[in-house]
Amino acid sequence: MTSPAFEVKSPRYVERVQDSFALQGAMQTLGARLARVEPGAVDIALDWAPGLTQQHGFLHAGMVATALDSACGYAGFTLMAEDAAVLTIEFKINLLAPAQGERFRMEGRVLKPGRTITVAEGRAYAIGPQGEKLVATMGCTLMAVTGRENIRN
Amino acid sequence: MTSPAFEVKSPRYVERVQDSFALQGAMQTLGARLARVEPGAVDIALDWAPGLTQQHGFLHAGMVATALDSACGYAGFTLMAEDAAVLTIEFKINLLAPAQGERFRMEGRVLKPGRTITVAEGRAYAIGPQGEKLVATMGCTLMAVTGRENIRN
Amino acid sequence: MTSPAFEVKSPRYVERVQDSFALQGAMQTLGARLARVEPGAVDIALDWAPGLTQQHGFLHAGMVATALDSACGYAGFTLMAEDAAVLTIEFKINLLAPAQGERFRMEGRVLKPGRTITVAEGRAYAIGPQGEKLVATMGCTLMAVTGRENIRN
Amino acid sequence: MTSPAFEVKSPRYVERVQDSFALQGAMQTLGARLARVEPGAVDIALDWAPGLTQQHGFLHAGMVATALDSACGYAGFTLMAEDAAVLTIEFKINLLAPAQGERFRMEGRVLKPGRTITVAEGRAYAIGPQGEKLVATMGCTLMAVTGRENIRN
Repeated sequence: MTSPAFEVKSPRYVERVQDSFALQGAMQTLGARLARVEPGAVDIALDWAPGLTQQHGFLHAGMVATALDSACGYAGFTLMAEDAAVLTIEFKINLLAPAQGERFRMEGRVLKPGRTITVAEGRAYAIGPQGEKLVATMGCTLMAVTGRENIRN
Repeated sequence: MTSPAFEVKSPRYVERVQDSFALQGAMQTLGARLARVEPGAVDIALDWAPGLTQQHGFLHAGMVATALDSACGYAGFTLMAEDAAVLTIEFKINLLAPAQGERFRMEGRVLKPGRTITVAEGRAYAIGPQGEKLVATMGCTLMAVTGRENIRN
Repeated sequence: MTSPAFEVKSPRYVERVQDSFALQGAMQTLGARLARVEPGAVDIALDWAPGLTQQHGFLHAGMVATALDSACGYAGFTLMAEDAAVLTIEFKINLLAPAQGERFRMEGRVLKPGRTITVAEGRAYAIGPQGEKLVATMGCTLMAVTGRENIRN
Repeated sequence: MTSPAFEVKSPRYVERVQDSFALQGAMQTLGARLARVEPGAVDIALDWAPGLTQQHGFLHAGMVATALDSACGYAGFTLMAEDAAVLTIEFKINLLAPAQGERFRMEGRVLKPGRTITVAEGRAYAIGPQGEKLVATMGCTLMAVTGRENIRN
């Protein structure tokens, strides 16, 4: 997916994403890495592991969603102000094919940034001997939150 | 949530759910247990753990989705025939409040069973000192799959 | 569907819904009426008409969505402050059965009201000689908007 | 949006879409026209009209959804066999901006065709003096139905 050019509000957007990502216990559980952080675009990479599977040995749809949600959330976060935290309001995922592969790449792309509401899209690719295959798409609504003491990124 | 009365096609539906659940590596990673298995209704219980969190220490939306997806999927699976496997086609989750709690209960309920397509709903509750709080809802479409060699439940 | 008890912020909530509903050209096109307006709960009624159909003569999924979206939106609007307008951020609809009937009743219910974001659910029932049948469910995210000159309810 | 190249199963796919579209009373109510019919890709065009509006005079989200659903549904239908009818299982729409414009173009694109299940995406553009603006996106799941007497396209 390509993405329109967006202007960042914080020059520290890469560091801010990295710092927040490091705080997500779920990303460590997934063995997930930040593979790309650009304005409005974040990629997350991870490998197949037995602790991430559903009953047929494929990646569990929820684990695909976990990585896609972080990719979309951080794509939105790259465009937010320094004092903002990001929360997911909702997302929807379509599973196009079994998430069968050795490695996976999750793309999060901002479609429409906003002061309060940001809309992002995600695509999940399974990577195996035959190359990349699109296995899931996500539509995601994010909210920029400021001034809540118990929420910081 | 209450649920209409549904007829099962397999008398072994509880055992079938338990066996399939035990194969989901993701459920072990979540520390999730089957708390209820009835025709068209499955509850999954889990505890807060640092490996399941987002950056503020709440349960990651994707981990909430993972447990809800399994709850919905197995709720649908209770009503399927012996030779059928269940796959999630899509789901959507609304996060109503931060998933903050010591324990969580995920409800999956069949809304409309079908030969091929089953629609289910899920609700996630956070449990803490103040009692239960609804933190997320899911709408989920499932497909009964038969005759695919690499897919069994 | 039942709904928790909600407190209104405007004593004129019924009138406000009625006034806004009357401005929706789409509701007139659907021949839709407000059948119930209570705090957090709005029902909309409409009759089958040839101008609302898809190719098999059932109600078009989009027309079901149009009525459900208004029901959910106005359910949220009943709980908003006097200076707020309501906008739909997103909705998802599951079509459980063909929308075949003489009349239809669309229920919108607030699940979680909020200062900015409100989450609502909808259910569409087809009414015929055999009684009521659930044909669709909706999950819906609404935003309260204030201070935008070109948006008033 | 571009779309991968798909193979059609019926050489009459354009005529089949046109015939079915003509049966949709909802499309006549919208004043909608088929602007493009290609394998896996259908565009629908329509003009602003007072009967399609919400309370602020913008196109009602449900009317945007109605046109997008038909665009996605017919995009899927172009790839289906002669004896298949198409039904929408579910769709989700994100409203990115008020649907304000003189004319609208709705794009439906197949993402993943299947024997039973097809996944499509839609984009709605408002057209005004300033050009085109993306106002909504849709994710849509379709089912190919055969052998049901009361459903034909």
